[in-house]
Amino acid sequence: MSVTAAKGFTAAGIAAGIKGNGNPDLALVVNTGPRRAAAGVFTSNRVKAAPVLWSEQVLKGGRVSAVVLNSGGANACTGPKGFQDTHATAEKAAEVLGGIGAGEVAVCSTGLIGVLLPIDKLLPGVETAAAQLSEHGGEKAAIAIKTTDTVHKTSVLTRDGWTVGGMAKGAGMLAPGLATMLVVLTTDADLEAEALDKALRDATRVTFDRVDSDGCMSTNDTVLLLASGASGVTPEHAAFAEAVRTVCDDLGQQLIRDAEGASKDIKVEVVHAATEDDAVEVGRSIARNNLLKCAIHGEDPNWGRVLSAIGTTKAAFEPDALNVAINGVWVCKNGGVGEDRDQVDMRYREVHIVADLGAGDATATIWTNDLTADYVHENSAYSS
Amino acid sequence: MSVTAAKGFTAAGIAAGIKGNGNPDLALVVNTGPRRAAAGVFTSNRVKAAPVLWSEQVLKGGRVSAVVLNSGGANACTGPKGFQDTHATAEKAAEVLGGIGAGEVAVCSTGLIGVLLPIDKLLPGVETAAAQLSEHGGEKAAIAIKTTDTVHKTSVLTRDGWTVGGMAKGAGMLAPGLATMLVVLTTDADLEAEALDKALRDATRVTFDRVDSDGCMSTNDTVLLLASGASGVTPEHAAFAEAVRTVCDDLGQQLIRDAEGASKDIKVEVVHAATEDDAVEVGRSIARNNLLKCAIHGEDPNWGRVLSAIGTTKAAFEPDALNVAINGVWVCKNGGVGEDRDQVDMRYREVHIVADLGAGDATATIWTNDLTADYVHENSAYSS
Repeated sequence: MSVTAAKGFTAAGIAAGIKGNGNPDLALVVNTGPRRAAAGVFTSNRVKAAPVLWSEQVLKGGRVSAVVLNSGGANACTGPKGFQDTHATAEKAAEVLGGIGAGEVAVCSTGLIGVLLPIDKLLPGVETAAAQLSEHGGEKAAIAIKTTDTVHKTSVLTRDGWTVGGMAKGAGMLAPGLATMLVVLTTDADLEAEALDKALRDATRVTFDRVDSDGCMSTNDTVLLLASGASGVTPEHAAFAEAVRTVCDDLGQQLIRDAEGASKDIKVEVVHAATEDDAVEVGRSIARNNLLKCAIHGEDPNWGRVLSAIGTTKAAFEPDALNVAINGVWVCKNGGVGEDRDQVDMRYREVHIVADLGAGDATATIWTNDLTADYVHENSAYSS
Repeated sequence: MSVTAAKGFTAAGIAAGIKGNGNPDLALVVNTGPRRAAAGVFTSNRVKAAPVLWSEQVLKGGRVSAVVLNSGGANACTGPKGFQDTHATAEKAAEVLGGIGAGEVAVCSTGLIGVLLPIDKLLPGVETAAAQLSEHGGEKAAIAIKTTDTVHKTSVLTRDGWTVGGMAKGAGMLAPGLATMLVVLTTDADLEAEALDKALRDATRVTFDRVDSDGCMSTNDTVLLLASGASGVTPEHAAFAEAVRTVCDDLGQQLIRDAEGASKDIKVEVVHAATEDDAVEVGRSIARNNLLKCAIHGEDPNWGRVLSAIGTTKAAFEPDALNVAINGVWVCKNGGVGEDRDQVDMRYREVHIVADLGAGDATATIWTNDLTADYVHENSAYSS
């Protein structure tokens, strides 16, 4: 159901010919109202793709009537022509949808950096997609934004009379920086842009921002939340925020499970940190350690690599107070050898690492995956 | 020739049985004087191995008469017993060498973290090594400190009547933090500890500190510089510093060329940065980008991944003023598409990336290597 699960939205996904292989590559999501409130978070990479620069401007108005998304090309590092192409895409959508301005159309692109989009295919594609808009088009839209994703990712949560739905794409170049992928969330809750913005930022901070597949931050990351108000219900902020967080968490988990070449999903839980920032810093350092990620791939509970990663951070801790558990076995106690590492069962896809800093009460969880020969192959065999 | 190229040094390398496969695993380097000045730099990882904690204390005195080095075990995260073992190793060396105290014996260990050394093999090994000390023992010592290294690394530079020689080990877990590997440098120049210290820090800052194979910082990194004064020559500081820097640079290059699983040596040169710190930050960000390292492995001049790495830094630059050359072809100009990427010849082992920030006059070069399936295999198939 994806983005059309919430009332007041239509969507479509088509093959516009942007991808050479004929796969779907263009999605359109339209908010049919009555309200057209929106919030967005974007990559903090300072090299931003043209659609990110454009959509940041659109979102400043707090109003989005439609989103055009394409796979098959990131439109990043494409200069003034790339920006003109994004602008033309929004103009085209406004024209074919009628009654809206280009300034209400957000644009998202994903694919290879440094290549201009085939605008002669994209613009007719927008027209084709508009003609196929449907209240059941959410899944097709989710399929059309895939790049190296092996599955499309959607999530829906329904509460008392209102719904939050969403779709996401992302499999590589996943790393924090506000957002880490393309995500469109929709809701029929009747909320203004300001409330959406707060719920979205609170949610992404503890979900997508803590998904770190390969430490590589995209130039195109965008997460949008659109509200149609079509349910006529205005939920309490706490309930709405919880729903958005739950959907973001679900989509983030789906991204990790589909990470390029991965054979293990690794949950890095940092506990007893002095501050949440410390916990996040330590979690990221562990999650980005290539040697540890290789060891986990080899089903080796190599806790020494966890400690050496912790040691590179500025977080508050004493080396001889560090404890580390892998899949429930405290293999490192007080900075040294703990329980028998042979007791660690590494056969399952999910691996749970707990790093206890013994320095306070804060905690944070970062999700990553193992580093595999398949990841190397996927990212070396062709340009992506 | 290695550490015994300089007059006033003997060395030995033997198999003490620390490694299960019977390969050489224990080296001893002795400064026979007349001077026994020394300087050292150590890992900035806050989780430090017992031998690092010990040797840092030894170096405070500016006097080192002998260095015991073992492969086959890092003696890191081994608690009070690990420190006792390091102490006992120094005591044993002092005892068998005679006439020196344990406080003049530096100890270096390398290998798996979190495992106690077989001290019952190590201590007799020190005695065996002492019996085999020779002015021609430098190469054997260099061989005995190898872990996953495929070749031993040595370098010698002779100037007007004095010499700097050295040996190094390191193939993985190579990343900055003062030092990034085990290195022993020797000289027969007649210099005090303070002069050695300055020359060594100046050299490591622009050599070993800018070798970044896999972004993983060791718990055991140590670089020692010992001076015997046996040449009777006291060189000018500038000439001596240049010699030390040249030997460090040579050894650093050898480490990169032997990096685990690597098929490409990548020179990342950042030019026109506002400050040297900016240049180093950008160079490291590029050098640590797994996606770029995979692309280079695939002989793909994927400059978009260079820009996305630059974009994650805090360095001064404007995105539309960035230029990137790969092997001499300016594939990215003004933040966008530049010369034809098909012109880039990627067939050779060395790949040269120039990132022009257009923001000033500072420059820095970071060396790294590609990310390969062989790296994954070497670091997942067994504990290391």
